[in-house]
Amino acid sequence: MIEYDAASAEVRAIYDDIMATRKTDWINNFWKVLAHDPVTLRRTWTSIKEIMAPSALDPLTKEMIYLAVSATNQCGYCIASHTAGARKAGMTDEMFAELMAVVGMANETNRLASGYQVEIDDKFKT
Amino acid sequence: MIEYDAASAEVRAIYDDIMATRKTDWINNFWKVLAHDPVTLRRTWTSIKEIMAPSALDPLTKEMIYLAVSATNQCGYCIASHTAGARKAGMTDEMFAELMAVVGMANETNRLASGYQVEIDDKFKT
Amino acid sequence: MIEYDAASAEVRAIYDDIMATRKTDWINNFWKVLAHDPVTLRRTWTSIKEIMAPSALDPLTKEMIYLAVSATNQCGYCIASHTAGARKAGMTDEMFAELMAVVGMANETNRLASGYQVEIDDKFKT
Amino acid sequence: MIEYDAASAEVRAIYDDIMATRKTDWINNFWKVLAHDPVTLRRTWTSIKEIMAPSALDPLTKEMIYLAVSATNQCGYCIASHTAGARKAGMTDEMFAELMAVVGMANETNRLASGYQVEIDDKFKT
Amino acid sequence: MIEYDAASAEVRAIYDDIMATRKTDWINNFWKVLAHDPVTLRRTWTSIKEIMAPSALDPLTKEMIYLAVSATNQCGYCIASHTAGARKAGMTDEMFAELMAVVGMANETNRLASGYQVEIDDKFKT
Amino acid sequence: MIEYDAASAEVRAIYDDIMATRKTDWINNFWKVLAHDPVTLRRTWTSIKEIMAPSALDPLTKEMIYLAVSATNQCGYCIASHTAGARKAGMTDEMFAELMAVVGMANETNRLASGYQVEIDDKFKT
Repeated sequence: MIEYDAASAEVRAIYDDIMATRKTDWINNFWKVLAHDPVTLRRTWTSIKEIMAPSALDPLTKEMIYLAVSATNQCGYCIASHTAGARKAGMTDEMFAELMAVVGMANETNRLASGYQVEIDDKFKT
Repeated sequence: MIEYDAASAEVRAIYDDIMATRKTDWINNFWKVLAHDPVTLRRTWTSIKEIMAPSALDPLTKEMIYLAVSATNQCGYCIASHTAGARKAGMTDEMFAELMAVVGMANETNRLASGYQVEIDDKFKT
Repeated sequence: MIEYDAASAEVRAIYDDIMATRKTDWINNFWKVLAHDPVTLRRTWTSIKEIMAPSALDPLTKEMIYLAVSATNQCGYCIASHTAGARKAGMTDEMFAELMAVVGMANETNRLASGYQVEIDDKFKT
Repeated sequence: MIEYDAASAEVRAIYDDIMATRKTDWINNFWKVLAHDPVTLRRTWTSIKEIMAPSALDPLTKEMIYLAVSATNQCGYCIASHTAGARKAGMTDEMFAELMAVVGMANETNRLASGYQVEIDDKFKT
Repeated sequence: MIEYDAASAEVRAIYDDIMATRKTDWINNFWKVLAHDPVTLRRTWTSIKEIMAPSALDPLTKEMIYLAVSATNQCGYCIASHTAGARKAGMTDEMFAELMAVVGMANETNRLASGYQVEIDDKFKT
Repeated sequence: MIEYDAASAEVRAIYDDIMATRKTDWINNFWKVLAHDPVTLRRTWTSIKEIMAPSALDPLTKEMIYLAVSATNQCGYCIASHTAGARKAGMTDEMFAELMAVVGMANETNRLASGYQVEIDDKFKT
């Protein structure tokens, strides 16, 4: 992991932008590891910054969607970091519980639909 | 698929509840196929009805989370049906585009975190 | 797809063994496509023949496990072919319904366990 | 995690039913964590109790299918808990080895079928 | 889908860059659909252009890795488009067959490693 | 885990072949665990030996494809072991970074293609 003090000016500028955007004073491990590849670090951060900015969907909804995907993929790191991110954005215990309930149910019915080979209704066709 | 007219009284009662709860006058194929197993039909509908009811998370957010999971799992039927469900609950074109952007990015960084074997930050540990 | 009549002697011998082992008089598309790579055709068939032979687990149980995996992965071809395979091995409508119920539930609780970051009980550690 | 002594009467009743149904004297972590959301705890337990009860498929077969899905999804907690569950239901070392062999092979051929874009045989169409 | 003639100047400029970079005279459906969200269209194309450019890994290797991921995820569209992309970059029938063999085997042993709960060797720890 | 000294002659012969083929003097945990099922040990090793041998694709490319699949599936053991394997076969830091970039991007666009329900272009149809 590349710590702030050991980082190049290029990487440090990205770290600064991450902390300023997120209003925090530390960098989590994901970025410190990605910093070994400054091109991917820059592209990934720039993309996330653009995607997660408040717009038609509010930041809390976006963080919960991020967490829903991470739980579906069972990515341990991402579940931990985006649970923290969603909590910071305002997710309550009750919201978290409901989010998990929806994620669980969706994963169940996804397989029922596939396993039963259900055909798409004409009304659902775009 | 078991159509309404051919359904048993038990299945018909569930169909009626689905239509009443969703304020629609038709049943989509998923339920008509599940109806071959009335036990699973009843349990799945009862669970979904409980999970998707408005509560700490509003119905639109829940439908978008359902769609995020379905897109991650690449379940064709579920993507089609929950895109329709989310639109009915108020999802605009712009919201859909942002939802997909978050889903795509989360799927990307889930693999970067795993592939780079990033360790969970102490601050993220529960 | 490489049909029997157009197949090389090497491929034809494998086709013959597939039909003899499965007591059928036709070859399904999976093998006809794999036949473009005789090395993979031979290795895959030899492996499947060894794995699916009756032993500590009976053929029906094995086919249902195969179908459970295919439904979880949402592989359309594999769901179709192994549903047929399991039916041929004796899977009734009721068994199929119960199989799908277990597959659906497992996919749900897999995500609840991960999303809630549940730690493994000491009693479960090997 | 919510221990038995700290649980509400509602949660305690579910814990009692879990122990009685499974003929054990302890509760595994999954339920203790889910207990933070009594609604999901109740719904999940009620569903699992219904699904896993002996019926057309015996309990051992159901536990092995649960394990097959968990291994396919690579859910660490679920693999550990359902390996224990299947062993308790009678899975021998030999059965476990064969189960894993089928799970591995199914995951392999699922990708061969998709990667080679194999079309579903007419005979497999429902 | 947004065709070239109906596209805004912004989208058309991206279409032009895609065709110039790929030395083709047509745009595939993926981009025409993404064009409904010019922000995602631009970000996705810019990222792919950067990632897929020749560098330490040659374009053929990159296309084959893209196809390996798509086959693992069983994304029908992506398998079709990246099979075409890899062929254009020089993938022979023999290379494709070997690629699929590795993808299949990796998907198998991924589950054997997880299902058997294999611990990471100290020598593999970073 | 079954160590060399405790292994049967049959297992020991496979261990010897693994070490000779890979030009190493140790056996990693995966094989020591699989050794509990000599049939699966033999079949898996024979298959991997055949698949990973140099041919139309060089060993480095094959190891990187193996790693791409393992990162996509988020198999911790497999990521660790095949990162080591790819490094031994010549993967540089730069190559690893590019590999991860492609894997991440492919996982992203796989979901964009599915979520947007993009139809396969006629030109991509085989």
